Amino acid sequence: MFEAAALKSKLAREDYDQQVDDLRMRLLDAQQRLDTARVAVVLIVAGVDCAGKGDVIGMLNQWLDPRYMRTHAFGEPSDEERERPRHWRYWLSLPPRGRIGLYAMGWYGAPLADRIHGRIGPAKLDAELAHINRLEKMLADDGTLVLKCWLHLSQKQQRKTLERLEADPETAWKVGKLDRKHLKLYGEFIGIAEHTLRQTDTPEAPWLIINAYDPHYRRIALAQWLIDRISARLDAVDGAAGPSPKIQACPPDHRGRDILAALDLGQTLDKSTYQKRLAHWQGRLNRLSRQARQQKRSAILLFEGWDAAGKGGTIRRITQAMDARNYQVIPIAAPTDEEKARHYLWRFWRHLPRGGKVTLYDRSWYGRVLVERVEGFAEPAEWGRAYSEINDFEEELTDHGIILLKFWLHIDRDEQLRRFQARENTVYKRYKITEEDYRNRGKWADYVEAVNAMVTRTSTEYAPWRLVSAQNKYYGRLQVLEWVCEAYQRALD
Amino acid sequence: MFEAAALKSKLAREDYDQQVDDLRMRLLDAQQRLDTARVAVVLIVAGVDCAGKGDVIGMLNQWLDPRYMRTHAFGEPSDEERERPRHWRYWLSLPPRGRIGLYAMGWYGAPLADRIHGRIGPAKLDAELAHINRLEKMLADDGTLVLKCWLHLSQKQQRKTLERLEADPETAWKVGKLDRKHLKLYGEFIGIAEHTLRQTDTPEAPWLIINAYDPHYRRIALAQWLIDRISARLDAVDGAAGPSPKIQACPPDHRGRDILAALDLGQTLDKSTYQKRLAHWQGRLNRLSRQARQQKRSAILLFEGWDAAGKGGTIRRITQAMDARNYQVIPIAAPTDEEKARHYLWRFWRHLPRGGKVTLYDRSWYGRVLVERVEGFAEPAEWGRAYSEINDFEEELTDHGIILLKFWLHIDRDEQLRRFQARENTVYKRYKITEEDYRNRGKWADYVEAVNAMVTRTSTEYAPWRLVSAQNKYYGRLQVLEWVCEAYQRALD
Repeated sequence: MFEAAALKSKLAREDYDQQVDDLRMRLLDAQQRLDTARVAVVLIVAGVDCAGKGDVIGMLNQWLDPRYMRTHAFGEPSDEERERPRHWRYWLSLPPRGRIGLYAMGWYGAPLADRIHGRIGPAKLDAELAHINRLEKMLADDGTLVLKCWLHLSQKQQRKTLERLEADPETAWKVGKLDRKHLKLYGEFIGIAEHTLRQTDTPEAPWLIINAYDPHYRRIALAQWLIDRISARLDAVDGAAGPSPKIQACPPDHRGRDILAALDLGQTLDKSTYQKRLAHWQGRLNRLSRQARQQKRSAILLFEGWDAAGKGGTIRRITQAMDARNYQVIPIAAPTDEEKARHYLWRFWRHLPRGGKVTLYDRSWYGRVLVERVEGFAEPAEWGRAYSEINDFEEELTDHGIILLKFWLHIDRDEQLRRFQARENTVYKRYKITEEDYRNRGKWADYVEAVNAMVTRTSTEYAPWRLVSAQNKYYGRLQVLEWVCEAYQRALD
Repeated sequence: MFEAAALKSKLAREDYDQQVDDLRMRLLDAQQRLDTARVAVVLIVAGVDCAGKGDVIGMLNQWLDPRYMRTHAFGEPSDEERERPRHWRYWLSLPPRGRIGLYAMGWYGAPLADRIHGRIGPAKLDAELAHINRLEKMLADDGTLVLKCWLHLSQKQQRKTLERLEADPETAWKVGKLDRKHLKLYGEFIGIAEHTLRQTDTPEAPWLIINAYDPHYRRIALAQWLIDRISARLDAVDGAAGPSPKIQACPPDHRGRDILAALDLGQTLDKSTYQKRLAHWQGRLNRLSRQARQQKRSAILLFEGWDAAGKGGTIRRITQAMDARNYQVIPIAAPTDEEKARHYLWRFWRHLPRGGKVTLYDRSWYGRVLVERVEGFAEPAEWGRAYSEINDFEEELTDHGIILLKFWLHIDRDEQLRRFQARENTVYKRYKITEEDYRNRGKWADYVEAVNAMVTRTSTEYAPWRLVSAQNKYYGRLQVLEWVCEAYQRALD
């Protein structure tokens, strides 16, 4: 893979000087076009040690307008980062539409270093690379231009560069112990790097490999490539009908048995039994959640369900049993402009709990395949690919040890109407009922279809859906409490 | 101060039951009115151990709509928090307009604990309390309703509560070793608490003290007080002309000598001398900034100045000398809606650098007393109080050990026109010139007045303004580089 990097890799000083002004102008122009077209760029500059990553990153910081870009380098994770899934810090750093995120090594730094120093084996590396491919595909599908560039040096070139840097007192500091060690490990490192590049050289995010020995050549080559890729992307946008880089066929929908209809809504429970059991389960949950807090196990509980199915009431019965200082209820309403400018999952990544804390989502990322699908806020291609994006996301959460529980609260249409009317008669609940609620009711069948597809496609081994028979509020609440306790118990054993 | 808390502090169960429904309805109503009026509430629930802080916080989480509130409890600071000024985490947590932030102990927890355990002396406690008073005043001036409630128990009541909690296996966990220890320290703790409350009982943010022994009484008393305070605040808003809770007289302006006119703009420097010196100072800055990185000293460099005074070019000469992975250039443009919904300083707190990192602000919080003042985007009362708010903010930064440098880049009006015209003739700079630039030029005299006031009022011992003679670009850039190196040198010695 690195063979091609050896070719035509020199540029004379005068040729460089001649090209710089034109390239700078075109880079600035490309950057402005990105802003206008609201296209985000993730630009990863990786490569071997001493290949000049810092130099080209510095160059880009000078040649581009710093107002529309941000440079990121990730060192040792902080304790807040360690308490979240590995990719959390990358997600939070993603550029909004129209901006450039410039990444030194990006998400490749950690797995490469872990592998070369033997902290992970080849299988773990491949799993991480597959994970990265999914992240990059998700970003590309969302309209982000993902650009990856590898600055290459042969072993001889690396040694010569190192010696040159060491000889100059102004640059000797750049050569750390690690570089010397890496020089010895060159063969091994380059094998792992090549494997990494091959595994992650995807149609959505291909690698450019540059021979970086000649500083003039690498700068011009990188700038030129950046301009070309941005132009190609923007020309495609101008020509296309919609904002999606490619329209995928909507995957065939679930047309089988109605999973919701199979749920027994006839369960009943009288008030005094309810109150006794409620006290029992809340007591249990209280103990379990304290244990989880001590063990720094965090949890995410998410609630979906029909309007008036009792999400709020159920959440309150759970939070009653917990210390209010340890949980957060995140209600999902209209996104802010900072959220709208990013991938739809970004706003959920923002609120992931620290170790030992609990986040309860009142509605969730499933809005993508529920309301956004039914109301047409998302294109079929967008909600169509959301199922697997969500599965990946939830796998990251559970892989990190987060206790993840998903509830669909089910009632039938008549019960919903009764509750709407009852709410209108309760003074402090009246504000909960709006015309929109009645409008949504009219789309019951579309929602049934969407819920069936959602449950079928996103009930995974690691994060199964729990369908709650909530026709009887008491029964539904206890069912959820029981399931939450059970999940905690299993996780803590 | 706690004597009054002993009076009429009991409520029978049936009286409680009778009042709850009405209170809940009125709380929800108050919350909706807050949202409509876009008034933020900071509600701090503090008190002695075992007084039921968790209980009333849990109650508020049930009675209010969780969609419009967030509960915060601060434990040991994380490493990211430790790398910023103490109040950083409080600032980031502040509720947007229309929402409620509910704080368990709020910013009082840390200084109280530090004092009771002897980690700080009385003088340090008083300094921290004065700091808190300034924070609360700043929030109140910005339209936030700051409510503080102290749940009190006499020593006898605390002992009885502790025993009751310990006797019940369901609640015994609530009694930690710390509580037992605090019981012994009651006299001492109550002395410190009373002092704290007295020092921070301000017109902007007075304390309510509740005897919390009877759970029914404390709940009703707190809910009632909350409703009353919110209503009073909103009635005041409805009656007032503007959004400010009170209009202050605009402080008298600087009318003395024109500080800018005193600056010698006749300095010149030829290109070859410039290039030699530039290399020298950049080399020096490179070494110093690496040292600072190793010592985890962070820095903030902020640049203000006339349009076309060379802020961008100067920033680039500085960043050229630094590792792009360690600095961030934050250009200050229009705020996002999340930023607009908070105090104007919030967006700057967001970007404070971690230990060893550098943030360069291209324009800054001084926009409040420059463009916002001149263009009338801020009321006289708003920009009038901003000088001391900014001084407080900068003191927090420098107290934390951050190297803070503020530059005003000065040119005269003719030079500005020449540069505008030159930009229009440079292809890749043309985008920098808009009609607005010419419009701003027309307000030169107003800006001179504003800059003079700014420099006079915010040049402090810990953060003096550096006025840069930038008529000659070379001279100005070197001057800034020299000052930056000097400041680094001083900080690192």
